[in-house]
Amino acid sequence: MSSETPMLIVDCLQYSNWSESIFREMQKGGVSAVHVTIAYHESFQEMVQNLIQWNGFFDRYPELIFPGRTGDDIRHAQAEGRTAIFFGFQNPSPIEGDIGLVAICHQLGIRFMQLSYNNQSLLATGCYESEDTGITRFGKQVIAEMNRVGLVVDMSHSADRSTLEAIELSTRPIAITHANPAWWFGALRNKSDDVLKALSQSGGMLGFSLYPHHLNQGSACTLDDFCKMVAEAANRYGVANLGLGSDLCQSQPDSIVTWMRNGRWSKSTDYGEGSAKSPGFPAQPDWFRDNRDFLKVAEGLKAVGFSSEELAGLMGENWLRFYDESFGPMEA
Amino acid sequence: MSSETPMLIVDCLQYSNWSESIFREMQKGGVSAVHVTIAYHESFQEMVQNLIQWNGFFDRYPELIFPGRTGDDIRHAQAEGRTAIFFGFQNPSPIEGDIGLVAICHQLGIRFMQLSYNNQSLLATGCYESEDTGITRFGKQVIAEMNRVGLVVDMSHSADRSTLEAIELSTRPIAITHANPAWWFGALRNKSDDVLKALSQSGGMLGFSLYPHHLNQGSACTLDDFCKMVAEAANRYGVANLGLGSDLCQSQPDSIVTWMRNGRWSKSTDYGEGSAKSPGFPAQPDWFRDNRDFLKVAEGLKAVGFSSEELAGLMGENWLRFYDESFGPMEA
Repeated sequence: MSSETPMLIVDCLQYSNWSESIFREMQKGGVSAVHVTIAYHESFQEMVQNLIQWNGFFDRYPELIFPGRTGDDIRHAQAEGRTAIFFGFQNPSPIEGDIGLVAICHQLGIRFMQLSYNNQSLLATGCYESEDTGITRFGKQVIAEMNRVGLVVDMSHSADRSTLEAIELSTRPIAITHANPAWWFGALRNKSDDVLKALSQSGGMLGFSLYPHHLNQGSACTLDDFCKMVAEAANRYGVANLGLGSDLCQSQPDSIVTWMRNGRWSKSTDYGEGSAKSPGFPAQPDWFRDNRDFLKVAEGLKAVGFSSEELAGLMGENWLRFYDESFGPMEA
Repeated sequence: MSSETPMLIVDCLQYSNWSESIFREMQKGGVSAVHVTIAYHESFQEMVQNLIQWNGFFDRYPELIFPGRTGDDIRHAQAEGRTAIFFGFQNPSPIEGDIGLVAICHQLGIRFMQLSYNNQSLLATGCYESEDTGITRFGKQVIAEMNRVGLVVDMSHSADRSTLEAIELSTRPIAITHANPAWWFGALRNKSDDVLKALSQSGGMLGFSLYPHHLNQGSACTLDDFCKMVAEAANRYGVANLGLGSDLCQSQPDSIVTWMRNGRWSKSTDYGEGSAKSPGFPAQPDWFRDNRDFLKVAEGLKAVGFSSEELAGLMGENWLRFYDESFGPMEA
């Protein structure tokens, strides 16, 4: 990172109530790329409707955002002061039961797909199930197809055994785009040391979450505490395999977290990481409110002792390398 | 055309019962690009299934075919002795009632869309309706969107007024990918002189059909008769606006022509260009059986007096120019 070039910032998970105002905050915050969730529980055709909504954003705000497909799009975004938007699914529901839809989704620009979202899916077990039976027969086929076309396996909401098996089965490095280590904060969504070791040893990436339910002390988590956790993770897993996946859900009404947790699968309300007493979105910590706060995180990481080069990696260059290697067809 | 380079051959409409054997015939015949119909009456999601079937062909026969997206893909195909496959719809049914699906279809590689297929559609009137009310309100919006993204308006099966209005409304040249002049053979599907004049004057392209129902004397049509018609069309409309769109429906069972004509819209059988007595596909003329016969057509065209340059244009270079200009986003 030369002194003239501002630090590259890549956020590997957001699901906000998208608007011009948020896109302007991305620009102001110098965020060159965001992995955006476009499906939780949607069918294929419902997901296409979400793509159409994004095509509308791309048409209306070309000076702020454009569709990201490759690592080079991040470089263009940084050079132009815009944000490249990369699409992902938090649940494999859009491929329904059809392996042919994997390639179609990649053609439509999808670059990440979680194999399960909290619950058992057709592919893998989610982290809220009581038993984890690992990757299913269909799941094995889908992982191979995702590897072939360049669609990244994301296990952020999957259970441990399923995650370990996905790491083993996938011939390309996978990602946990938004979670933290369970040794720092024991949320069901945070990941065991075994999982994180296997992930990093296989060249996979972890994106640290800034969603309060994944933070020690929740909304009251301090920047210093968060950054010390990152430093310890770097000791354990190697700094090159780490980045950010904020899980920022900005300006969303609470009905959205209910949708995320319940989709159409439950007639009674599931509160997920919340509770009947606090069913809505938690408040962000005061040092990370929105896209304009990434430099605060960078300051905090510098303060716990990361070098300039390590810091550049954590803030964006590590994801850039991973995007470069992950989104094209598999080499013969 | 240098003596070393074989003549470029582009066929702007086929709908065959696709197989390795047909792809090998394309290669043997030196066909560098084919516009392939992937939807007659399909919904969006059914059309996606047809794309998935094609992804399977592309995976299995990479030495023969690959997906075509731009004019340059034709150049690559010619250089590599393969065939670039360009997708089109004969009916706008895959966009359902949703203008957002126009851009999605273009993202999925669709490059031509007929605004109607024989019947009235949501966009335009088909050539078998008794009254032609021209381009609908939705149709005007869709033409503008097709112009924007680079999806070519194809009026092969549309009625005259609708076609003239489409030519007028479209800010980019349109195509009639597969039809002949009605002054040569008065089939309902062949086009009036007025339409063909307006088409060529606006830079649009006509692809001559080799489907027997569009040929003078049907299956018994002679090559010389066909080529003399092309020569007269070149006099009237300018050779640069003409190419081939064979409408080859090779190895299809007769159930397919029934599907093409009836989709799901009719409980009684509509025979279209056929009749109750001969409801199936007609036999091809003996000088154009399959993809290996294009050079016979070229010989016939040479025999009626076309120069080498004109011939190269008719056989492929005119479509190449049109593809180059038509498939990208509209310039500002």
